[in-house]
Amino acid sequence: MEYRKIKDEDDDGGTVSDDIESLKGKGFPGVVSISNVPPKEQAKWKRKTIVTLALTFLTSSQAILIVWSKRAGKYEYSVTTANFLVETLKCALSLAALARIWKSEGVTDDNRLSTTLDEVIVYPIPALLYLVKNLLQYYIFAYVDAPGYQILKNLNIISTGVLYRIILKKKLSEIQWAAFILLCAGCTTAQLNSRSDQVLQTPLPGWIMAIVMALLSGFAGVYTEAIIKKRPSRNINVQNFWLYIFGMAFNAVAILVQDFDAVMNKGFFHGYSLITTLMILNHALSGIAVSMVMKYADNIVKVYSTSVAMLLTAVVSVFLFGFNLTLAFFLGATVVSVSVYLQSAGKMQR
Amino acid sequence: MEYRKIKDEDDDGGTVSDDIESLKGKGFPGVVSISNVPPKEQAKWKRKTIVTLALTFLTSSQAILIVWSKRAGKYEYSVTTANFLVETLKCALSLAALARIWKSEGVTDDNRLSTTLDEVIVYPIPALLYLVKNLLQYYIFAYVDAPGYQILKNLNIISTGVLYRIILKKKLSEIQWAAFILLCAGCTTAQLNSRSDQVLQTPLPGWIMAIVMALLSGFAGVYTEAIIKKRPSRNINVQNFWLYIFGMAFNAVAILVQDFDAVMNKGFFHGYSLITTLMILNHALSGIAVSMVMKYADNIVKVYSTSVAMLLTAVVSVFLFGFNLTLAFFLGATVVSVSVYLQSAGKMQR
Repeated sequence: MEYRKIKDEDDDGGTVSDDIESLKGKGFPGVVSISNVPPKEQAKWKRKTIVTLALTFLTSSQAILIVWSKRAGKYEYSVTTANFLVETLKCALSLAALARIWKSEGVTDDNRLSTTLDEVIVYPIPALLYLVKNLLQYYIFAYVDAPGYQILKNLNIISTGVLYRIILKKKLSEIQWAAFILLCAGCTTAQLNSRSDQVLQTPLPGWIMAIVMALLSGFAGVYTEAIIKKRPSRNINVQNFWLYIFGMAFNAVAILVQDFDAVMNKGFFHGYSLITTLMILNHALSGIAVSMVMKYADNIVKVYSTSVAMLLTAVVSVFLFGFNLTLAFFLGATVVSVSVYLQSAGKMQR
Repeated sequence: MEYRKIKDEDDDGGTVSDDIESLKGKGFPGVVSISNVPPKEQAKWKRKTIVTLALTFLTSSQAILIVWSKRAGKYEYSVTTANFLVETLKCALSLAALARIWKSEGVTDDNRLSTTLDEVIVYPIPALLYLVKNLLQYYIFAYVDAPGYQILKNLNIISTGVLYRIILKKKLSEIQWAAFILLCAGCTTAQLNSRSDQVLQTPLPGWIMAIVMALLSGFAGVYTEAIIKKRPSRNINVQNFWLYIFGMAFNAVAILVQDFDAVMNKGFFHGYSLITTLMILNHALSGIAVSMVMKYADNIVKVYSTSVAMLLTAVVSVFLFGFNLTLAFFLGATVVSVSVYLQSAGKMQR
């Protein structure tokens, strides 16, 4: 009874660290049993599981759409306009969700759209970090090819773990660190192919850029979690609205800088097709799912969710596109599975 | 003080399970700190570390000798005569060690060579199991090639873990099981090459034989440990003598069955060279090291020792033979390293 009381107080007026504390010890969704847990905890656990599964499903179908679009031939649309539309759609969906909430609950301090400079000043930072990362992406291809880049992207896993520890000041047990290293090694193993060894010949500037990009991406993810968790009672749709507004702004600048001529001459929607539309819809929904995971779970869950999605994509591609699974894939999938178990076991041990 | 007293009593009149108990909680050699441990425990720990390092070094140099002999061209010697000489040399070395002990300590109940039927009756079993396994080895090559067989041999790791649990009735923590799965996946990953995927096309009889061979090999290892640990105070050289005498006998039969004509026409030592001699010497010493590890450590340590040796061999081969390390090797080595850590962490947790 005492425990429940303290928990309820946390939910009403908790600070960041309270909120983080209240998320601890619940283990990894899908692994920990939910029996003997009070109803409110169960509801939280259910919400966490739903957003995690949604992110896994959306990330996985995103990769499948990319394979599909590649097979269907190249579409000559501007990537920057597509990115802008993704941010706009996310903004619109957040507003629609808010409208429903205002109707049912009325406007409160937690769900009103108006904000203070103090609250809003940090929101452009993740969007800015992603922009810098995307700019670097053009230069790294001078040193590695696309499959090599896919492999180097697994460094994100380690950088997310390290920055999660440093910025959010959450302690990870030794078993959890071991699990992170395994997740990175397992994902890379699953992606191995006959040409992967070329990655080892990456020159030093390529390695440095890959590490910087991993740090930028990890920092953006962890920083977003910090922003969202800083005000636990604030409605997630308001937080999303402000995140995406700045996303729209930065992507508008990107259109002007990179694709101004193409948009002017051929029109904003030139080269769009059914697949392009589906991909924009999918990106928007998975973007929202990422925010939800940041709010109700954390970056560790996000990293695992997207890694498992990568494995699911490969399995689904066997049926959809007749891909073959390699021995390396099975080995990598085994290591990733053990890592999922250890992450949950390490959390309970802590 | 109480603790020391109980430990000393264990050493004097301990049963199998006492002996096993006294080995528990000391972790994996080379990982656990030895500070704050009583001197007798430290001596035991030192002995365990020395035999483990010896096994790792000998196994590693064994593999290097094999590569060297392959590079030097094929030698047309009879494998059965070489195996017989290995067993004979092990027997001779055990007797030499015993002679020294008899000189310094005199003949006691624990170090006398004479034995009872009750003690000796189980000694032929491991030798028999290895014989059956070696016979199967000729047939499995109808289904898989040599590199494929190397990969399937990693099933030994899992079978050793399972049989260690069943036969020696030692409980393994969940973390230790996870470590076993990782060791198997990591070793296989480290051995991946462009043709490894062919293993997945192994027909069902090939898989069954591979699993049966893994079980036979695991059973032989675990059974040897059970025999040696059953009489903890019995001198290891006497135990080795009886193990190797039966090894000699079975290998003599193998010469008669397989290479009788070759030995009769070309002589016992036909085709022997310096490398053959070195390999026989190395096999004999590593055989003794395996027995020592069974006596002073266990099958888990043996499995890790030989796995780490496999990785060391690859690294040394880079310098000796100009081999290239693959990305798969680095990933596999990472997973094996994490597995070593988890095995030690899991042991302490238990």
